[in-house]
Amino acid sequence: MTRRLLVVGGDAAGMSAASTAKRALGDRLDVVVLERQPWTSYSACGIPYWVAGDVATLDDLIARTPQQHRKNGIDVRTGATATEIDLEAGVVTAFTDAGAETFAYDELLVATGAEPVRPDVPGVDAQGIYGVQTLADGRRVLDALARDPGRVVIVGAGYIGVEMAEACVRRGLDTVVVGKHPTPMPTVDDDLGELVAKEMRSDGIDLRVGVTVTGFEADLDGHVRAVVTDHGAITTDLVILGAGVRPRTELAAGAGLRLGVDGALPVDPHGRADVERRVWAAGDCVESVDRITGRASYVPLGTHANKQGWVIGRNLAGYDVSFPGVLGTAMTKVMSLEIARTGLGERAAREAGFDPVSERIEATTSAGYMPDARTMTVKVVADRGTRRLLGAQIVGGEGSALRIDSFALALWNEMTVDALMMTDLGYAPPFASVWDPVQQAARAAVSTLGSPLR
Amino acid sequence: MTRRLLVVGGDAAGMSAASTAKRALGDRLDVVVLERQPWTSYSACGIPYWVAGDVATLDDLIARTPQQHRKNGIDVRTGATATEIDLEAGVVTAFTDAGAETFAYDELLVATGAEPVRPDVPGVDAQGIYGVQTLADGRRVLDALARDPGRVVIVGAGYIGVEMAEACVRRGLDTVVVGKHPTPMPTVDDDLGELVAKEMRSDGIDLRVGVTVTGFEADLDGHVRAVVTDHGAITTDLVILGAGVRPRTELAAGAGLRLGVDGALPVDPHGRADVERRVWAAGDCVESVDRITGRASYVPLGTHANKQGWVIGRNLAGYDVSFPGVLGTAMTKVMSLEIARTGLGERAAREAGFDPVSERIEATTSAGYMPDARTMTVKVVADRGTRRLLGAQIVGGEGSALRIDSFALALWNEMTVDALMMTDLGYAPPFASVWDPVQQAARAAVSTLGSPLR
Repeated sequence: MTRRLLVVGGDAAGMSAASTAKRALGDRLDVVVLERQPWTSYSACGIPYWVAGDVATLDDLIARTPQQHRKNGIDVRTGATATEIDLEAGVVTAFTDAGAETFAYDELLVATGAEPVRPDVPGVDAQGIYGVQTLADGRRVLDALARDPGRVVIVGAGYIGVEMAEACVRRGLDTVVVGKHPTPMPTVDDDLGELVAKEMRSDGIDLRVGVTVTGFEADLDGHVRAVVTDHGAITTDLVILGAGVRPRTELAAGAGLRLGVDGALPVDPHGRADVERRVWAAGDCVESVDRITGRASYVPLGTHANKQGWVIGRNLAGYDVSFPGVLGTAMTKVMSLEIARTGLGERAAREAGFDPVSERIEATTSAGYMPDARTMTVKVVADRGTRRLLGAQIVGGEGSALRIDSFALALWNEMTVDALMMTDLGYAPPFASVWDPVQQAARAAVSTLGSPLR
Repeated sequence: MTRRLLVVGGDAAGMSAASTAKRALGDRLDVVVLERQPWTSYSACGIPYWVAGDVATLDDLIARTPQQHRKNGIDVRTGATATEIDLEAGVVTAFTDAGAETFAYDELLVATGAEPVRPDVPGVDAQGIYGVQTLADGRRVLDALARDPGRVVIVGAGYIGVEMAEACVRRGLDTVVVGKHPTPMPTVDDDLGELVAKEMRSDGIDLRVGVTVTGFEADLDGHVRAVVTDHGAITTDLVILGAGVRPRTELAAGAGLRLGVDGALPVDPHGRADVERRVWAAGDCVESVDRITGRASYVPLGTHANKQGWVIGRNLAGYDVSFPGVLGTAMTKVMSLEIARTGLGERAAREAGFDPVSERIEATTSAGYMPDARTMTVKVVADRGTRRLLGAQIVGGEGSALRIDSFALALWNEMTVDALMMTDLGYAPPFASVWDPVQQAARAAVSTLGSPLR
């Protein structure tokens, strides 16, 4: 008997699950995907590089089009906005060009993604204030930039904020970034955030941190004309929201599914949001388990969305695979400065009940005598009692950020800093010092922790 | 009571142990170092980049001079060639400017390093044939290059061979590389070696592989004038030996210490070559344990030398630390192509008793739509029964090689390819695809291995 999988949301998580399941099951599974937009399987993370001009067209950001998915036997309905899920009946209602339509399912996958956080302040609905979450958002921003604004104000100094700042300043725009926290990139510690601030300012970005947006002023047409902050108003007719995202879970909540951290959907390791009623969920709308603290967390990232989708696809096909949780690994760059982090910072470690020790070192991206050696700063956090690595942060020149993966794998395997220090990492003068920066940082922690005599 | 540590060899391993122990013990330890050459603590690995012109002077390759070590209380004797160890008496004889001198010790560290393998063929002692192991070697090569040779022939197409080839071709020289194996870089599989061959040839290097050197012809002055091979003679007045190194263990063998793999000194995890007679050994003259096979291996690399030296220094100071063995991680580059490997290749895996499966993928160093995305080829080997990762190899453009560290840490922790596939590695378009190449390779292996249904 042919079962039907209905997927709400046709981006990374949804299409990854759909493709994986369809490939395995063929005619034994009908797959219908409801997607509001005209696009599927695209890289939202690529939008800043599209805006910057690195990526020529919207199409370049699309990994697989609706047509390509249809060729693989997946019934993709674009322009279809799901408005109601009836879990008891096993039916989803969606609006399309043709009006309301209902879709029955045997298995439902909620992959509705996330949406930009819009600050809860007066005037936030003025025209000219854009998020950067969907390709439509990206196109709107590009259209606005084509109208040659005098100035761009970016609200938020996290990943999206700094990436959009780079894009705008490279386009030659007067670029203002407003951030609430005293330093940009609050997912790294303030001392490392200071290095990011220095880079941004030297790139010509007007960075205003420790500043809270209190409202937006609009002109008579309803178009934004100033960002109002607790440190005065900044005139502009273009605002980009880079203050993070929140899960799009109104539809799921409306169906009676329970919401968790930050309003995201809790799921079990197999990807099930409701086992009885055959509901799965994945991607930017779900919670993940933090492997270090064991707690639920909300970490919307394409890398998790793809894996979660794959896990669900395999489970639908009869395999038994689990999504093992996250560490909070993330990276980005602003101009020539690379930024990366994984695991817990010192404060988060303390809050999670560890007794953290942190160490910071300066190293170089290649042997110090090589002409292209760049400075990098590495900070590690370890637990005093167990000597286990708890987290790491890196800020530095080209060749710095990828090293976060070494820390991530050490965290994943619950290694001590002593063990990490002695591992066999790659070495050659163009790539590393004879003690890799990762191991220099681990060694510094070992030294701070001290060792028992024999 | 003050003990005396006598160190024979003042490079990475020797000076690392000397410094670590002296820092911990201060006046409780006398440290005397006997070093043949005028230099200490230098980077032999940097010689190709010095020859290439990336590194301006010999001094840049020296991490710490004899004077700096002396300031730290270490009695460094340069120009002192140890000629005999009397283990029963606890005395080493060395020749210096002043003639023969004897040095008594309480603890002896043999850190005599390695020397280039000189092919056992007629004429190999002709003038104009240089190794690249010591700074003196590097200087001799630079002097020879300054005399504007018509052509350079490099014997050996491994790490030193390809690095010296890059240096020579960048200096505008007619550069010939002769290698015995059918592809260059025999530490990666032949299909990846072919990619290296292609790069070398496109860089203008005259690569002749599958060719065996059978002798060297010299002119009447005793200077080399041709390299003779089983595929004809190649005229040249400058030959660089890049056919690997062997341990310098004649001194230790002369004292009655047992030699192991490739003539290297076996040591226990603490770094002891002979516990009873208080002999330690570290660096390019010792064996290491391969963590995957559990077998003794000879892997002379600065990164191990430094760690082994540190371990001995800590143990001398009363701590209890072990060198945990090696994986065979190594990396290099030739022009714009990066090459890296760790663990076992398919053949080595089979020889070690595994049932290996290998998978090869093509990926990009950043998201495929980014303008600087470079192609990279990744090959993984896994064990069929346990699904454990056994090894990985990478050849690709800028941003490829560092990813070997992820594989190295997965190997270190005996991860399965299934587990590696689901780890939380860093992602952002300038650095990776949403599935990192490491995880794409692991996923390919998972797919080949198949999975049991639930």
